[in-house]
Amino acid sequence: MASSLMSTQCPAPVLDAALGQRVFARLHEIGFDGRGMTRPSYGEGENRAHALFESVAWEHGLEVRRDWAANLFITIPGQNRSLPAVMTGSHADTVPCGGNFDGAAGAVAGLLVLCAWARAGYRPERDTTLIVTRAEESVWFPISYLGSRTAFGLLDPALLDTPRSDDGTSLREHMLACGAQPELCGRASVLNAADIDCFVELHIEQGPVLLEADVPVGIVTGICGSTRYRSAVIHGQYAHSGATPRRFRSDAVMAGASMMMALHEAWRQVEAEGEEMTLTFGVCQTDPAQANFAAVPGRLELVIDIRSRNEDLLERMNGLVIEQARRVESDFNVTVDLGPRTRSTPAIMDAGLQAEAEKLAASMNIPVVSMASGAGHDAATFAGQGIPTEMLFVRNENGSHNPDESMEFDDFLYGVRLLEHLLRQRASRP
Amino acid sequence: MASSLMSTQCPAPVLDAALGQRVFARLHEIGFDGRGMTRPSYGEGENRAHALFESVAWEHGLEVRRDWAANLFITIPGQNRSLPAVMTGSHADTVPCGGNFDGAAGAVAGLLVLCAWARAGYRPERDTTLIVTRAEESVWFPISYLGSRTAFGLLDPALLDTPRSDDGTSLREHMLACGAQPELCGRASVLNAADIDCFVELHIEQGPVLLEADVPVGIVTGICGSTRYRSAVIHGQYAHSGATPRRFRSDAVMAGASMMMALHEAWRQVEAEGEEMTLTFGVCQTDPAQANFAAVPGRLELVIDIRSRNEDLLERMNGLVIEQARRVESDFNVTVDLGPRTRSTPAIMDAGLQAEAEKLAASMNIPVVSMASGAGHDAATFAGQGIPTEMLFVRNENGSHNPDESMEFDDFLYGVRLLEHLLRQRASRP
Repeated sequence: MASSLMSTQCPAPVLDAALGQRVFARLHEIGFDGRGMTRPSYGEGENRAHALFESVAWEHGLEVRRDWAANLFITIPGQNRSLPAVMTGSHADTVPCGGNFDGAAGAVAGLLVLCAWARAGYRPERDTTLIVTRAEESVWFPISYLGSRTAFGLLDPALLDTPRSDDGTSLREHMLACGAQPELCGRASVLNAADIDCFVELHIEQGPVLLEADVPVGIVTGICGSTRYRSAVIHGQYAHSGATPRRFRSDAVMAGASMMMALHEAWRQVEAEGEEMTLTFGVCQTDPAQANFAAVPGRLELVIDIRSRNEDLLERMNGLVIEQARRVESDFNVTVDLGPRTRSTPAIMDAGLQAEAEKLAASMNIPVVSMASGAGHDAATFAGQGIPTEMLFVRNENGSHNPDESMEFDDFLYGVRLLEHLLRQRASRP
Repeated sequence: MASSLMSTQCPAPVLDAALGQRVFARLHEIGFDGRGMTRPSYGEGENRAHALFESVAWEHGLEVRRDWAANLFITIPGQNRSLPAVMTGSHADTVPCGGNFDGAAGAVAGLLVLCAWARAGYRPERDTTLIVTRAEESVWFPISYLGSRTAFGLLDPALLDTPRSDDGTSLREHMLACGAQPELCGRASVLNAADIDCFVELHIEQGPVLLEADVPVGIVTGICGSTRYRSAVIHGQYAHSGATPRRFRSDAVMAGASMMMALHEAWRQVEAEGEEMTLTFGVCQTDPAQANFAAVPGRLELVIDIRSRNEDLLERMNGLVIEQARRVESDFNVTVDLGPRTRSTPAIMDAGLQAEAEKLAASMNIPVVSMASGAGHDAATFAGQGIPTEMLFVRNENGSHNPDESMEFDDFLYGVRLLEHLLRQRASRP
């Protein structure tokens, strides 16, 4: 019980801040594309980032292994290795021309915790494992949480043939080139919920909430689910803009504007009733080959993204999308093809872990606020398996998925200290 | 006075319908691009079309000349050549992948009239001239009515340096390659209003009004003017679609949709008050390089086109565009850069010519309706010079500026017969 006593009675193992800065600097070198970070999923940049984490782990005497999907696992062994393990982690890939902290912050945080424990000679009761996942952003292969889902055996083998969005090479080929064994897909899972005590992911906040609240760390209450139409098309009829009176028109843009405004109004009402959601038409475009200033537009592509932690609300909004599509078909004499709906289920964060994190933060004088995550994360995969899951957000300026991500290193250290204490508390349980 | 008497007492000269069909067929061969017609302004296709008109004119013993802008003039000389001439005409160029009748119909119509007169030995009192203009569509060089305006000395010589929209070669180079003498620009005009009795242009209707009215020919009351913003941009802020609550957003697409809907509502009100106008946002697009399903869109390009015969209404709507731009800036926390405004003045058709045309149509049992032209035409240049001007529209299916333009040849002949009689009535006046 000696080390278990240490976990509550000794001073916290000291984090090697300089190591953290060196790793971030090296990740920046690996990913820099002239303007931002490009470390593509199942690609060269991600491979080099994984190799960097692995080499630091070796230097600190930590256990290292890879699963057949090429996720990286770094473990400090527990005194009782048969107990469910404590896990943390995040991803090392980026969107094209992204920032250096989305994903990497959580992986570096976990690494600093395990290295600090190793240097302090602290041996937890339970295995404590950092997973550096593959392909969370997965820009080339639009499959959510690709690496973490594969680790749980959740990847449909048919998806291995998914062609890369730009050059058509398959996911399978990319996995093979990264040392993975895609032939095991569907036949083996690496992680099992029963073997995992909890999963805690640190991540930068991708919105401005912490900045506005002037607080370095957020305790996440849940991860929004989504309802999406990624390829909706409004079909109208091209016609001369001057020679076609209104009653003869099938104007795809006017129909789209009307639909967007109706849904926007519904969003305002939902918020007025105290519910949280977001509604975004991120892509809205006429056909560059045919649209011109002198023609009624005959085609508009729209992308619809609705997110909320409330699954009933997502369903209600989805019904409204369909209802509005039918309305504008009749009001504007167009056809609305919403295309396939994709969706993800909201993930609830564990109430016990939230309470523990809040209590620890208070004891450590780290100001925190509770908040939802509008973005999806690998943590949603773990929560979806029924594993007690929690996320810590670190204040970050200018959003994410762009080169201007800006996380203060001091804010990061607040987050890592809280993560360390929370993991230590969980890992010290017999 | 013999031929003048003939003009009112003899049967109408017989139109050579087969010649018309041959010319349309040859124009189709010249312009066919595999899908539609492409006879670019001041380009190869337009040159060959002009050469075709010229060769038919020579065969019929008509006078042929070109001005220094390479417009083509085909004349049957009057008995009194010092009297102001009667003119007709239209253009031979097309938009890319357009149809075979927009422009060409009016040029072929004028050719059939003059050839019929020549064959019938009819010599009018006044010179009667077909102008086959250059560059009415002028897709490469966005200058309205380029050929007809140049003939009146209205082209600013500075515009000769306008670069072609796709490859950058100048208008001057293109004119030179077509046998024009751009060095005379600004120093000589070819046409003078005082020398022109009237101008009548036959053109296909580019909307569905005649089709719906089930009438082959329209008598045009006026040509709409326009107010345009061809390069408006709404600047917002890209941000994570899930992580950015509504109050933090600068959503360019929502701002655009709100602006479009407000202006659409104003249009409905204007129509309810009995005014005619059109409002079109022909291009509406997010930035393909940055927009994606998971980002609040930070940029939207919009093209705004408003047309009406009522100049006051155009000014009122323009004020509303500016007002709405300011409103959405404040409502959606965006910046709206409307860019340069371009405009054209409405052209009123001559009341006397309209009355003559209506009376002749009635006497010839040709059903007609009066209607405005929402599209612009070379006729607007003549009207703008104070020349009594009129247009005749011929029924046409599927609009124009596309390969599916569909004018029935019988409808065309109704139009040409009416044109012939109207020109003959005007040209026979001493």
